[in-house]
Amino acid sequence: MDGQPTLGAFLGFVTQIEKTRAEAGLDALVNLTRADMARVNETILSRTGSEVAMIPEVANHLIASGGKRLRPMLTLAAAALCQSPGEGHIKLAASVEFMHTATLLHDDVVDESDMRRGKPAARKVWGNQASVLVGDFLLGQAFRMMVEVGSLACLDELSSAAAIIAEGEVMQLAAAKNLGTDESVYLEVIRSKTAALFSAACAVGALLAERGAAELRALRVYGESLGLAFQLIDDALDYGGNALTLGKNVGDDFREGKITLPVIIAYERADATERAFWTRTLDKGQVGDGDLETAMTLLARHDALATSIAKARHFGGEAIAALQVFAPSHLRDALEDAVHFCISRAH
Amino acid sequence: MDGQPTLGAFLGFVTQIEKTRAEAGLDALVNLTRADMARVNETILSRTGSEVAMIPEVANHLIASGGKRLRPMLTLAAAALCQSPGEGHIKLAASVEFMHTATLLHDDVVDESDMRRGKPAARKVWGNQASVLVGDFLLGQAFRMMVEVGSLACLDELSSAAAIIAEGEVMQLAAAKNLGTDESVYLEVIRSKTAALFSAACAVGALLAERGAAELRALRVYGESLGLAFQLIDDALDYGGNALTLGKNVGDDFREGKITLPVIIAYERADATERAFWTRTLDKGQVGDGDLETAMTLLARHDALATSIAKARHFGGEAIAALQVFAPSHLRDALEDAVHFCISRAH
Repeated sequence: MDGQPTLGAFLGFVTQIEKTRAEAGLDALVNLTRADMARVNETILSRTGSEVAMIPEVANHLIASGGKRLRPMLTLAAAALCQSPGEGHIKLAASVEFMHTATLLHDDVVDESDMRRGKPAARKVWGNQASVLVGDFLLGQAFRMMVEVGSLACLDELSSAAAIIAEGEVMQLAAAKNLGTDESVYLEVIRSKTAALFSAACAVGALLAERGAAELRALRVYGESLGLAFQLIDDALDYGGNALTLGKNVGDDFREGKITLPVIIAYERADATERAFWTRTLDKGQVGDGDLETAMTLLARHDALATSIAKARHFGGEAIAALQVFAPSHLRDALEDAVHFCISRAH
Repeated sequence: MDGQPTLGAFLGFVTQIEKTRAEAGLDALVNLTRADMARVNETILSRTGSEVAMIPEVANHLIASGGKRLRPMLTLAAAALCQSPGEGHIKLAASVEFMHTATLLHDDVVDESDMRRGKPAARKVWGNQASVLVGDFLLGQAFRMMVEVGSLACLDELSSAAAIIAEGEVMQLAAAKNLGTDESVYLEVIRSKTAALFSAACAVGALLAERGAAELRALRVYGESLGLAFQLIDDALDYGGNALTLGKNVGDDFREGKITLPVIIAYERADATERAFWTRTLDKGQVGDGDLETAMTLLARHDALATSIAKARHFGGEAIAALQVFAPSHLRDALEDAVHFCISRAH
């Protein structure tokens, strides 16, 4: 074994590459899609317009508060990677962002959230009612734009995603406060509620260009794996980030009794006293002062965040592997960087 | 003028015809669409299926509680009237019912309703969260079915309706508790929130059959006018029906501060004391014991319900007139009967 690198050294090396790539962040992807994204933003603005004043108010509150526009950017990049002809990708990218925004508006009602993207949630400003209805409006507008593009294959991909997302959210609702939830159920939830839209956002690039099954499959896998990695990191950050970078309150999942992977891991590895703690706080919802700190201590004791991040890195690897179907290009590199960026948020 | 019938006699004669036709009710329409409707019901059942147990539970609570299925019945009848070939009308009819059910689920959250179709509202049994998310799931499934049918024209008609419905609901929200709302704004609200789906439900029959512009326009006008009449009667019944036939509580609109046509009429005709009453109850939301009875007295004093019903009858006439593009047939008669049925609910 002499002279062979240890596993530790290898992981250190991988982490080093990841950090270098992560520093580039989303810059390359942003630059390569800049011109198209300007047109997507115009489309978004014009399609949130309505004579009913409350609609653009509520929609722009969220849309203008500057998410990263990661999902529509993926659609643009996938379309470019597949050399999709015509203009359809602009409206499809806007549709993807509308579907995402609608989900956020409805999620805030479901989760009774107070903050979103570092601002008060729309439901706190305009009420649950406006959040539900403006979400419905954006969903309707998303489908109208897809219909205008006229690709039944893209419509199929995105409408299926819409149903699957809702299914995942209901699954999460059913799993909430249930410490019997295991990793496979959790992965199924995030595969539906998050990864399905990432996957469809990428897949429509291949569908629009009428590329073959291999490219379509590759973009679906890339999107899904990236989405899984993204959500795993998001869930880890809920216990380890800060409100500024997170755009929501640390510990929201804990207070809402959401069963995410860090908790599942810590609960599996817990002794009787620790299990009682998790049962009281997550199952029975009796959360008091200091409980979030205790939860974070228990997660650290059992390497729960590190294990979650390792899982995210695993899916990130699958995302990058899937891209290898495509010839090397700046776009392919940029899509790889996006994976490293999503994972590096946890550092 | 001797020997010429008076206006009163003429109206009496019209009312007599209306009563005779209304007695037939929806029977003819139900009979003529019975075989197709059985297949629509099968489709509805199979498409509410999900491994996530809460989805069929919530969906079936509402779907199985037996609405009249008026909207999908209209799609089936319109498709038959246009001799639409193939099987597309079955899935489109199911889509229309899913869109409607999704709207009801979301409406209950928006209105904080306790009852729906004579049963506790889904949100009272499973919570607002499930109502929002299962509504989203049904909307996603509706679009999937439309995509399977593969008619871009039908997709366009129904996705436009989805956005318009949400727009109408937001408009209604903005107009709530605002006694400055006039009849034209009210009509715009119900044209969007109710009549748009009736119109699209009928129009897809012509689109699927690729019939010409005249038939398409006729079915749109028929659906829209029927929808307007239907909602006008519904709003009148909220002050004059009973919980059993209404499937919701009498006075719900009053307690929620909804500004409907009967109130708009009574407010326009009110003296200062009466205006103060409406301002206190609807604008400021201070509703106490006996206020609903007072409201009903004021509506009666100013003929507000009768005037609303007359307006419904006007739109019913337009619906029937639009149908005359089609040659006489049992189906056309049945669609006319549906108009009389909707209006006769107020008798």
